[in-house]
Amino acid sequence: MSETNRRWLLAARPQGMIKDSDFRLAESPVPEPGAGEFLVRVTHLSFDPTQRGWLAADSYLPAVKIGEPVRAGAVGQVVKSNHPGFKPGQLVQGGFGWQEYVVSSGMTEIGPITPLAPGVTPEQALGVFGITGLTAWFGLTDLGKPRSGDTVLVSGAAGATGSVVVQVAKALGCKVIGIAGGAEKCKWVTDVAGADACIDYKREDVGARIHALAPGGVDVVFENVGGEILEAALMNLAMRARVVLCGGISSYNVEDLSDLKGIRPYMQLILKRARMEGFIILDYMNRFGEGVQALAKLMAEGKLTCAEDIQHGFENCPATLRRLFEGKNLGKQLLKLADPPLPVA
Amino acid sequence: MSETNRRWLLAARPQGMIKDSDFRLAESPVPEPGAGEFLVRVTHLSFDPTQRGWLAADSYLPAVKIGEPVRAGAVGQVVKSNHPGFKPGQLVQGGFGWQEYVVSSGMTEIGPITPLAPGVTPEQALGVFGITGLTAWFGLTDLGKPRSGDTVLVSGAAGATGSVVVQVAKALGCKVIGIAGGAEKCKWVTDVAGADACIDYKREDVGARIHALAPGGVDVVFENVGGEILEAALMNLAMRARVVLCGGISSYNVEDLSDLKGIRPYMQLILKRARMEGFIILDYMNRFGEGVQALAKLMAEGKLTCAEDIQHGFENCPATLRRLFEGKNLGKQLLKLADPPLPVA
Repeated sequence: MSETNRRWLLAARPQGMIKDSDFRLAESPVPEPGAGEFLVRVTHLSFDPTQRGWLAADSYLPAVKIGEPVRAGAVGQVVKSNHPGFKPGQLVQGGFGWQEYVVSSGMTEIGPITPLAPGVTPEQALGVFGITGLTAWFGLTDLGKPRSGDTVLVSGAAGATGSVVVQVAKALGCKVIGIAGGAEKCKWVTDVAGADACIDYKREDVGARIHALAPGGVDVVFENVGGEILEAALMNLAMRARVVLCGGISSYNVEDLSDLKGIRPYMQLILKRARMEGFIILDYMNRFGEGVQALAKLMAEGKLTCAEDIQHGFENCPATLRRLFEGKNLGKQLLKLADPPLPVA
Repeated sequence: MSETNRRWLLAARPQGMIKDSDFRLAESPVPEPGAGEFLVRVTHLSFDPTQRGWLAADSYLPAVKIGEPVRAGAVGQVVKSNHPGFKPGQLVQGGFGWQEYVVSSGMTEIGPITPLAPGVTPEQALGVFGITGLTAWFGLTDLGKPRSGDTVLVSGAAGATGSVVVQVAKALGCKVIGIAGGAEKCKWVTDVAGADACIDYKREDVGARIHALAPGGVDVVFENVGGEILEAALMNLAMRARVVLCGGISSYNVEDLSDLKGIRPYMQLILKRARMEGFIILDYMNRFGEGVQALAKLMAEGKLTCAEDIQHGFENCPATLRRLFEGKNLGKQLLKLADPPLPVA
């Protein structure tokens, strides 16, 4: 094979908002799989807020090294194989990163490479049945523990994870209040995802609106944003509320802890006998099957719709990641590199 | 009876640090108990950080009204009785407030009046076997859930509640790190209460010292202080740590939420899959017997020592409350008004 393999390598640890100059586009020949290896051509890249953390510093995973490809979940097609478990033509999922071709013997930095289940599209594999949907499912059910009739507040409600949380909470019989930025997203959260209401944080006083919509407070908060949104949620807790800390996208591009605004009304956790708890979805790996099954059931029942924001062109990797922090995506952010089925060797 | 009854009434809602002018000393004749009532002469007043909240605004209890006696837990002796359940000479406990004499039919704003158990001193009834000790017991065991071998970090470790938490955690087989202000308090926390170490927050870098003493992080945080102490604790959590929010004395005298410094590293709760949870001890009222029994057992085994800071003179009520916020008390803050047994009618 004499084709070119393009790869986006980390050039510098991001300071503040990610910039094009934090990355470097490198070209090299497409690699050849050795004994026991196979070659994947990447077709779909997943973009997730947590990637910003992987670029910045060691956290729950070691930081991406300078000069290495940017770590990312992805789907691809096996195009050549010397591995008995992987056949050319097969669609597979794994942490392939920002590269067009990858040689592997089956393991990536974020877990083993697995074939896509029959009937599951690449978009679904990376979205609702991937880390995104599983984060929504386990965060909401395992930490949030909503009961039918509870009021559930979801920030980032038009985002990949939040949009699934909204729909799962509705399916569990909860009253759901979303928070999103802009009229278009809010309309999607209520009209498509089915939330009872959606607060536009760009236009409305979030705290006052939560209070108006849930005068008795909210029982579960699914938090993707942090900062002032989290403060508004804490000021409106019901007794024994559960605050699920899934992420805090508002702070991911802050350079220094001392530039970060703290959460002031944390004493509300005492007055309301409430709990705030964080989680990392990778801890649930041995329960992923259970989560996928539950989500697939909801989808079969027509209770779960997926929103996907699909960009195109490998050259647009950095710009597509930036869309998350600019609040541009509605639903799961993906970048499509190629349309399977692809020719195989 | 022609004696005088002195009462400290709330004159103004405190702004910032409590001042003498927030209170007004009133004199009136000692009241006479009517049918079904009894007269208590208050002998010991309890001083607790939560009283500051009761003076400021409605919270988990309605605010003390302007012109009403300051709400406080207390012990007293029945000196006259027209109530079949209460006999003159009997020592009783209840929310008698800042007044020398109280007429009651058996209930106070913070619960029913109960006789002291045999062998329990007034100091113990208000301290280790009262709200103070029960807060330590239930907060630590029910929310903190320490296992033998866990590292437990206790702020306010020389305070009434913290000093009990240190000793209970040691009795449960934990490594205990206290945080207190000043060499004398720290020495008491290690030498008398038995903590493995105590950090002097007035002199040491709390975060660096926690890290040095517990390089793998702390499993349980029992938080009485808030602010920078809580931030230092959050930066040093072990995986799946439990942060028990008992109080936040550093913020009780802050006038305005916007003057409050927020807690910045709350995202550590995600990275460490940790939980921060608040509680109010009054919710455990139906389990108080169980808690008293457990604490009495530890005391009988010589594993629980009580520190009491006893002031004198009814005129010193406001100054004694202020001691808590000035960090002057070592152990339970009490004010002794009279020495039972007292003459009865």
